[in-house]
Amino acid sequence: MPERAADASASLRGVQQLFGPAERVQKMLDVEAALARAQAALGIVPAHAAEVIAQAARADGFDLEALASAAPAAGNLAIPLVKALTDHVRTADADAARFVHWGATSQDVIDTGLVLQIREALPIVLSDLDRAATAAAAHARRHATTPMAARTWLQQAAPTTFGLKAAGWLDALGRTSDGVRRAVDAACVLQFGGAAGTLAALGERGLEVAERLGGELGLPVPVIPWHAQRERLAALACALGVLCGTLGKIARDLSLLAQTEIDEVAEGRPGGSSAMPHKRNPVMSARALAAAVRAPGLVATMLSAMPQEHERALGGWQAEWDTLPTLVIVAADGAEAVAEALEGLEIHAGRMRRNLDVTRGLVMAEAVAMTLAPHIGRAAAHELVEAATRRAIEEDRALADVLTEDAAITRWLDRSAIEAALRPESYLGAAAAFVSRVLSAARVTATGDAKAR
Amino acid sequence: MPERAADASASLRGVQQLFGPAERVQKMLDVEAALARAQAALGIVPAHAAEVIAQAARADGFDLEALASAAPAAGNLAIPLVKALTDHVRTADADAARFVHWGATSQDVIDTGLVLQIREALPIVLSDLDRAATAAAAHARRHATTPMAARTWLQQAAPTTFGLKAAGWLDALGRTSDGVRRAVDAACVLQFGGAAGTLAALGERGLEVAERLGGELGLPVPVIPWHAQRERLAALACALGVLCGTLGKIARDLSLLAQTEIDEVAEGRPGGSSAMPHKRNPVMSARALAAAVRAPGLVATMLSAMPQEHERALGGWQAEWDTLPTLVIVAADGAEAVAEALEGLEIHAGRMRRNLDVTRGLVMAEAVAMTLAPHIGRAAAHELVEAATRRAIEEDRALADVLTEDAAITRWLDRSAIEAALRPESYLGAAAAFVSRVLSAARVTATGDAKAR
Amino acid sequence: MPERAADASASLRGVQQLFGPAERVQKMLDVEAALARAQAALGIVPAHAAEVIAQAARADGFDLEALASAAPAAGNLAIPLVKALTDHVRTADADAARFVHWGATSQDVIDTGLVLQIREALPIVLSDLDRAATAAAAHARRHATTPMAARTWLQQAAPTTFGLKAAGWLDALGRTSDGVRRAVDAACVLQFGGAAGTLAALGERGLEVAERLGGELGLPVPVIPWHAQRERLAALACALGVLCGTLGKIARDLSLLAQTEIDEVAEGRPGGSSAMPHKRNPVMSARALAAAVRAPGLVATMLSAMPQEHERALGGWQAEWDTLPTLVIVAADGAEAVAEALEGLEIHAGRMRRNLDVTRGLVMAEAVAMTLAPHIGRAAAHELVEAATRRAIEEDRALADVLTEDAAITRWLDRSAIEAALRPESYLGAAAAFVSRVLSAARVTATGDAKAR
Amino acid sequence: MPERAADASASLRGVQQLFGPAERVQKMLDVEAALARAQAALGIVPAHAAEVIAQAARADGFDLEALASAAPAAGNLAIPLVKALTDHVRTADADAARFVHWGATSQDVIDTGLVLQIREALPIVLSDLDRAATAAAAHARRHATTPMAARTWLQQAAPTTFGLKAAGWLDALGRTSDGVRRAVDAACVLQFGGAAGTLAALGERGLEVAERLGGELGLPVPVIPWHAQRERLAALACALGVLCGTLGKIARDLSLLAQTEIDEVAEGRPGGSSAMPHKRNPVMSARALAAAVRAPGLVATMLSAMPQEHERALGGWQAEWDTLPTLVIVAADGAEAVAEALEGLEIHAGRMRRNLDVTRGLVMAEAVAMTLAPHIGRAAAHELVEAATRRAIEEDRALADVLTEDAAITRWLDRSAIEAALRPESYLGAAAAFVSRVLSAARVTATGDAKAR
Repeated sequence: MPERAADASASLRGVQQLFGPAERVQKMLDVEAALARAQAALGIVPAHAAEVIAQAARADGFDLEALASAAPAAGNLAIPLVKALTDHVRTADADAARFVHWGATSQDVIDTGLVLQIREALPIVLSDLDRAATAAAAHARRHATTPMAARTWLQQAAPTTFGLKAAGWLDALGRTSDGVRRAVDAACVLQFGGAAGTLAALGERGLEVAERLGGELGLPVPVIPWHAQRERLAALACALGVLCGTLGKIARDLSLLAQTEIDEVAEGRPGGSSAMPHKRNPVMSARALAAAVRAPGLVATMLSAMPQEHERALGGWQAEWDTLPTLVIVAADGAEAVAEALEGLEIHAGRMRRNLDVTRGLVMAEAVAMTLAPHIGRAAAHELVEAATRRAIEEDRALADVLTEDAAITRWLDRSAIEAALRPESYLGAAAAFVSRVLSAARVTATGDAKAR
Repeated sequence: MPERAADASASLRGVQQLFGPAERVQKMLDVEAALARAQAALGIVPAHAAEVIAQAARADGFDLEALASAAPAAGNLAIPLVKALTDHVRTADADAARFVHWGATSQDVIDTGLVLQIREALPIVLSDLDRAATAAAAHARRHATTPMAARTWLQQAAPTTFGLKAAGWLDALGRTSDGVRRAVDAACVLQFGGAAGTLAALGERGLEVAERLGGELGLPVPVIPWHAQRERLAALACALGVLCGTLGKIARDLSLLAQTEIDEVAEGRPGGSSAMPHKRNPVMSARALAAAVRAPGLVATMLSAMPQEHERALGGWQAEWDTLPTLVIVAADGAEAVAEALEGLEIHAGRMRRNLDVTRGLVMAEAVAMTLAPHIGRAAAHELVEAATRRAIEEDRALADVLTEDAAITRWLDRSAIEAALRPESYLGAAAAFVSRVLSAARVTATGDAKAR
Repeated sequence: MPERAADASASLRGVQQLFGPAERVQKMLDVEAALARAQAALGIVPAHAAEVIAQAARADGFDLEALASAAPAAGNLAIPLVKALTDHVRTADADAARFVHWGATSQDVIDTGLVLQIREALPIVLSDLDRAATAAAAHARRHATTPMAARTWLQQAAPTTFGLKAAGWLDALGRTSDGVRRAVDAACVLQFGGAAGTLAALGERGLEVAERLGGELGLPVPVIPWHAQRERLAALACALGVLCGTLGKIARDLSLLAQTEIDEVAEGRPGGSSAMPHKRNPVMSARALAAAVRAPGLVATMLSAMPQEHERALGGWQAEWDTLPTLVIVAADGAEAVAEALEGLEIHAGRMRRNLDVTRGLVMAEAVAMTLAPHIGRAAAHELVEAATRRAIEEDRALADVLTEDAAITRWLDRSAIEAALRPESYLGAAAAFVSRVLSAARVTATGDAKAR
Repeated sequence: MPERAADASASLRGVQQLFGPAERVQKMLDVEAALARAQAALGIVPAHAAEVIAQAARADGFDLEALASAAPAAGNLAIPLVKALTDHVRTADADAARFVHWGATSQDVIDTGLVLQIREALPIVLSDLDRAATAAAAHARRHATTPMAARTWLQQAAPTTFGLKAAGWLDALGRTSDGVRRAVDAACVLQFGGAAGTLAALGERGLEVAERLGGELGLPVPVIPWHAQRERLAALACALGVLCGTLGKIARDLSLLAQTEIDEVAEGRPGGSSAMPHKRNPVMSARALAAAVRAPGLVATMLSAMPQEHERALGGWQAEWDTLPTLVIVAADGAEAVAEALEGLEIHAGRMRRNLDVTRGLVMAEAVAMTLAPHIGRAAAHELVEAATRRAIEEDRALADVLTEDAAITRWLDRSAIEAALRPESYLGAAAAFVSRVLSAARVTATGDAKAR
């Protein structure tokens, strides 16, 4: 397969691998190993046992398919995994086997394992968002005053600039990235409560073990275990949902601008077709739009799963297991695709300008109306210009020609005033100012933050 | 891993495998092979070429990971697969390579491949539904008059029978299975339209090839290709969503009845706990409830994906690729779990009866009120009995004792009439009749249908 | 307000009114009145009481706001309504008040009332679907061979016809309408089970009353009450979801075709803008697309609500109360909007043809490749033509000119053969045949069915 | 209707009214009035015109039904409203009518109007969350060491305390409230961009007007208009979704604890039944659970609506109009219900303790195993105790009796050690410590924040 393909989906594949069966098991084993080390450090289990456990805790020593097959009947993956780990350890040292999973419950291991996956996967997504934001900022700066048609209801409405459009993306990307970052930080905490959330199996030493375990794993210890309180993960899912929507917005714009008949942008590495040799498909936009279609349902599942029964759920928790990983993968897919699309984007400024002439002046109707309004009021101006545009459409003529025939208009505006009002370049309002504001805001945040906003 | 585990998830694993990467590629290759054969039969491609193509169309000859890696940049899996297939064929016979994928488009192959997967996977689900229905029917018949508490708002309300509860499940399973069967039948049609849905690449022979291809694959040819019209797949997704909801309803009832403090049923093969040796977790119910939590979001995604652009979508179609397979897997998981749970169900009829005494008569309040109502009206009877129940609760006494102290009641009902009214067995109404009606309806339909409902 | 506005939303407003607070209460009162009449006919309640109850059962005699305010604390609307009805009846005849709501439970009244609303509202939706289908059929017939660009990934792909596009809509509308009709029929059944679903309060006569009540209301009596088994309503919700997706697909196509730069269709009664006098907004398409965005989440809610506890739900049933009505209203909105859009549609066949020339031949690339393929194979032809299209794009030339410079091509095709291959009209494949098949299928079904398919 | 009903739904009705048709129109009129005042202050429109516009901007002067009827054909509510407002103003002063809606677009008015509704409605929700949190904190403090059964998979698992359960709720409520508060703050910004988002109709003075308008309305001016960038509203929807899930979790626990057979809590003001006089329905829990079922679908809709086309959407924006208000109402419903439920909660500590004896020691199995584990290892102890529990269940005996028969156990633990291990009070681990941590965290945040966390 060509290298190109590899490049354009490296992040996606990285995140997929992090949530694949091997890494899932490895992260759970990491928790078991860290637990043993933490308890050894506190003298709760023998140091030697902790070493043996840590050595056995390598996913490549386990039969992943057998574990997956056993999970449905056992109720979760941790039960067969702990059993298999105990067997492995026993082979090496029968005594050490006594201390596997000491004081923990399945959910401690599954949830903390998931947190470790999240902690490793999300920086990949955030880094692609940084790439996308950097590219959007460059477009915004460069095209702050490049005129193009603003389109509302998919109809040309009035002029805007490509920079303003890109600034809108940039602003949204910044806000959305911040939301993801905050949600990841909040979600990356230890889960450790034991069978009933009281750590009773550890007697007086539960909190001490929790702190040490958190230290081993580099995870903060929350004020209380969160077995059946899922708001942190739900909030992370939501942040990813908002992210996918934002990516979908950018991709929707790009794909509409890349239409054959509009051709104002093109993806740098379009896809081909198995049937049509000339096709230049905006495949990155499609990836991002697919992410935007998929995320809402996955978010809804995470929210629906929240009302979990008592101290451990019967259905809700289980529903999360594939849903959140899928959602992270979907977000990674969308983020990488938008980064690729924006970085490689071809911008056809000439075509943008020419497309503004497609309506032979109609797109400037508001401009004319607003030039007229101070003389006769907004409503009357709107009506006069609306009538003129109707005539221009019916008779298929340029708006300028129709306007100059209407005495009610020429009483206030002569031909040259009308023509001036019809120039897109002179009707861009605060577009450039808005672009500056967005770039400044992005920069300021960038200073405070290590990386982007 | 113990055999038990294998048994309880055989269907799930079968369906997972059918939607795994190898089978996915194989089904697409099956379409390519059938296309070549169909065209050879019509003299459009050489017979020899069709043979070579068919021989090359074996998934184990392909690098599945490389294909998966190439898909994101290409836009879909068919593009690299057709390229790889052409390469394989070329190795065997350069001339035959000219005829690979003749007149088809990527979507023809991807959609028809999916249809082949569905056709093979859904009978597994339907067969588990048959198992579940058979078990529910047996429970309904056997326990048609076994009294238990009906519970509304999770409060004991009045007596019902376990058979009536099971009949409700059975009736719903039948209706839901019918819906799934109908949706599968409707969805299992050929997709074959070529690049633009016109089959223009096949000149005058498009329809002829379609008929022959349908014949090769055993798939009906629809009146028109359905590239961007997804209502059949959306309806299938919906039928699976309704199914998961129905399974979730059964599982919710089972899990509530299996609570430690209620203990009216138990799963035959409960799960254990990694921390708590006495646990008998209703893991099959949890599987089904998890399916019921997951399905709605996946259905929503399939519906959100429907408004697809023009002749091929940009985002919507792509969003289906993982969503529908996941939904089928989720439904298979839920169906198998409910079949397992109902087949192995322990029913504690004695405990059901004893639980009816927990309220010391309160659960029979409506019965008393309705016995009183012909004498003084429903509203007045309701009020009198409500007052008595309030006193019984406040003073922690049996309802019978309180009722017999109220002259407004004893004026119409003496102690023995009150005690008669308080017997659950005499207040089961049409429960047994409803059970009969459900069993009859299920039987009648069974005659018409080969297998179940 | 102008008459136009009224016309274009009459169905929407009709359905909104049917699910408004007054009609909601009236339908519940209709159930209470019918119950009294049914019981009077069977001698269970006095005939006079039934008359008084029926007379009191008029929504305009009730304080709708007070009822709505009382519902949250009571738990549902039926409790305060039955109380208020009993008070009304008592004023007229104290004795009759004894027989209000006899043997029923709140859910019987609320669910059957909902069924009555559905039975009245859905024909409005189906009638708009008939309008839409009739219009689509006319477009399909008239434009069976009107060439236009098929677009895949929003890129011009190859020629198709507008009739084929309309036939695709028609086929989907038929299938979807059938699904809605079937779901409505299935859902329109009586709910009558009493407190515990056993009708015990009616002693031996429960089924008899049910049959008579069903007769009074014109509703079939199901084999078993369905208090906590919601698959019929969930399936109706799903059918409406699939419908909204189908409507959204049509609207997406229309809105894309109506873009300023493409201009191949226009809505007959576009909307204006408060700011831009020239705007011709496709407001009907927007209504339908909004319906397609809203329906999936509402469907998901109905599915999520299905696992209802025991004999009456705690949360799930309550979640349906506003959700299903909203979904019917959303579907009515979308159906009416598409009917309006298709009936009034302006079709710009000339522009469709001219847009096929926009790519200066690229859109015919597949046609050329397929003309070449019999000579050198599909893959080689694809590559040669792909190279030519690349050159045509880079050098901004017509494809014909580039092709005729390539000896590898002209060896097989001379200039006139190339030009013939580049004519859209000669590369429409089975488009017209597919249109005929769809029209025939629609007609045949129409004969069997009273009204449409 | 009784006063009680009113009290328990005052917040709900307040929020419903804020999103009702009158208030919706009023908020849009507030924007128009503020715009006129802002422009008058800057000398852009005459001061007198601004006064006349402000005076006309009162919803009670408008025909709300006519406006609602006109909206579907116009495309949005602002178009007929601006027209009607202009007519009103013209009646008072023809000249002033020229300046209505000056430089604005429909979306400016609709979005900013929505923001004003949100700003007024959400404090009601947050105040109910404060009530709920205060009540949860009191329960947590008071019952920090009140033993009850922790239940996992709806099976008694091991002891916990009611205070720990309440602390879990409190912690989640705090985190969720913070999320809502942050989302509200972020969403409450001005929308003002004019037709194309450039404010071009205001020439050089667009930003100046925006600042002044923001000042008039008390809304921050964002760095760029956000017409088609909806991430702020989507994030608010998400925060409400997480909130509803958190409320649903609390309500799920309450409703399960209130079951007739468990009876560990009761709502202070339960609902009655139209059929069953003794019912004490947990109606507040049902309200909150219904909110948790409804919110996910509504959140999904808001996320699905995000990929909006170019400068104004065709479907996505329109889909938000009823969805976000409904979601706020749903959240208000759930928040008030949980506040009511927690404030009025009856806690049956005696029953909690007695329920711990229901299993005759099984619930203490982990405790025994952990007491045994230091002697023989966790796995071996687990197996021995599991065998004992199996025997206790089969032979229906107390676990203590079975354990004392097993020499492998009594070798390490004598009868009194076993009995000590079986006392729930001595196996509460860090429960009280976790409660303290949660209460401290809640208090600290409360100091920083004005009101709660």
